[in-house]
Amino acid sequence: MSDKLEFLKVFPILAEEFLDIAREYKFPAASVEWIKKNIYHNVPGGKLNRGLSVVDTLKIIKNNQVSDEELFKAQVLGWCVEWLQAFFLVADDIMDQSITRRDNPCWYRMDGVGNIAINDSFILESAIYFFLKKHFRDEPYYINLIELFHEVTLQTEFGQLQDLLTAPEDHVDLNNFMALAMRMAGIEEELAYKHAKDILIVLGEYFQVQDDYLDCYGDPSFIGKIGTDIEDNKCSWLINQALDRASSEQRKLLDENYGKKNPESVAIVKKIYRDLELEALFKKYEQDSYSRINDLISQLDESLINREIFTTFMGKIYKRTK
Amino acid sequence: MSDKLEFLKVFPILAEEFLDIAREYKFPAASVEWIKKNIYHNVPGGKLNRGLSVVDTLKIIKNNQVSDEELFKAQVLGWCVEWLQAFFLVADDIMDQSITRRDNPCWYRMDGVGNIAINDSFILESAIYFFLKKHFRDEPYYINLIELFHEVTLQTEFGQLQDLLTAPEDHVDLNNFMALAMRMAGIEEELAYKHAKDILIVLGEYFQVQDDYLDCYGDPSFIGKIGTDIEDNKCSWLINQALDRASSEQRKLLDENYGKKNPESVAIVKKIYRDLELEALFKKYEQDSYSRINDLISQLDESLINREIFTTFMGKIYKRTK
Repeated sequence: MSDKLEFLKVFPILAEEFLDIAREYKFPAASVEWIKKNIYHNVPGGKLNRGLSVVDTLKIIKNNQVSDEELFKAQVLGWCVEWLQAFFLVADDIMDQSITRRDNPCWYRMDGVGNIAINDSFILESAIYFFLKKHFRDEPYYINLIELFHEVTLQTEFGQLQDLLTAPEDHVDLNNFMALAMRMAGIEEELAYKHAKDILIVLGEYFQVQDDYLDCYGDPSFIGKIGTDIEDNKCSWLINQALDRASSEQRKLLDENYGKKNPESVAIVKKIYRDLELEALFKKYEQDSYSRINDLISQLDESLINREIFTTFMGKIYKRTK
Repeated sequence: MSDKLEFLKVFPILAEEFLDIAREYKFPAASVEWIKKNIYHNVPGGKLNRGLSVVDTLKIIKNNQVSDEELFKAQVLGWCVEWLQAFFLVADDIMDQSITRRDNPCWYRMDGVGNIAINDSFILESAIYFFLKKHFRDEPYYINLIELFHEVTLQTEFGQLQDLLTAPEDHVDLNNFMALAMRMAGIEEELAYKHAKDILIVLGEYFQVQDDYLDCYGDPSFIGKIGTDIEDNKCSWLINQALDRASSEQRKLLDENYGKKNPESVAIVKKIYRDLELEALFKKYEQDSYSRINDLISQLDESLINREIFTTFMGKIYKRTK
């Protein structure tokens, strides 16, 4: 069975564990049903990449020597990441007044939900700490897991505030969640986490810039959507490079046309990107990042942390087309 | 200086500690300013009873032998309770579409805020775990504090869901937060927490019933507001007693008049309360609760936990008029 199918099989187990608390509180059946709908509507329907990457990373770190119990625990952690994601998405959709999410109506737009979705998002967040307590309480790294989720939560909230106050840009956190798998694998030296973070920050930036590049230059049939960063006034890597390099005439045209929905304006912006040779600039940036990341990886102390984790990650990301 | 003034002096210290994270993240000044406004608008303006009760309780447990450092830590914990309260109030006000809170416009109604208030409420919650980590990380009871806040948070969210799905009733948690002070005082036996909880549940129910009684029979100049439970269709102790005891004729009148805004309907409901002698019923309930709570307190094992904590609490609550 594929990793993804195995991973999906764990979801209903966790859902039932959580619903059991509500049942123990002697909640009316209608309320338990509400919580169940909240959970099933919002948690499992995504790409699950984040959650699966916890499992993947543990396997790499432990050279595929993972017991059934360890596998299950890594899956639980992966699901905690997905519940965290669900918490933010439910709330973000209200704040952005979005219409659909993962091909379904957003939760707050479902019949009778509305602003109750705010409290429902809180409940999704609280579930994380219930699962950590239930499955990790006796592990020496229990507190580290909690602190990691708190930290990522605050970072995401600060990032979301920035987006709400300024021109928004999608976030791609090339997950701190690597650290979850490292904790599970028994890595204790703080230096290992510091080194991993140093690499992941650069890797994450590269991933983000690639995303911005693909939005404009990627093949829509590969990336699965038609990019609209220009129309949506996104603060993307490309427009930032263009503003750095534009003549005063080009600058004027960008001011007039960036963030406009009509195809003529988009064409004008794209022409300036072409005139400024941003594709070539990206290729150079890509090459430089690749060298820099490889340098960082080669400097890693292998007694602290396995280099292969990062080369595998890098292999998945470098020159991706989607 | 009064306990409350001392307590208030700690607030700006915590606010700055938290804003420093945003500054370290190199947030634009405008974003830091936003977070500051969020904090100052929402956290410090309440009655502060919950926060102060952490400090009070520690003093009682430790027979007033509290060092300056312990006092400061208890104040930090008290503020964590207030930040938790602020997190919920900001969100509840959006969900209930309330207009004012603590004599100010609700945060979501402030200029330019709107639904950004949802994310702002999240940030208030995250601050709690930042403060716990900063001030308690090296204490043996650090994990207990975190778990306690998680537990209270989930309980409150479940309670809020009940309110949103059915006729709402205000919550008075006669705080679990006693446990915060007990942790600080070094009490480790789980049995002590179980005994405390058993008493606090009864004490909390009594406090809640009193609240419902005072809403109808209290002197508005004492309780500081004119009760509107009848108009607001609240699921109060009084109406529940009335429904248990009503003749079919009275039942019909209650069905027709409870939850109606006009003074005639309120008068009809109050007359039925009078005819059913609910005041006398409350006095009996009060007497019974008092005996029951005192029994529980007298059965306490003093080697586990100081009885005085509960007699002091009881003294503050019994036959209160506001």
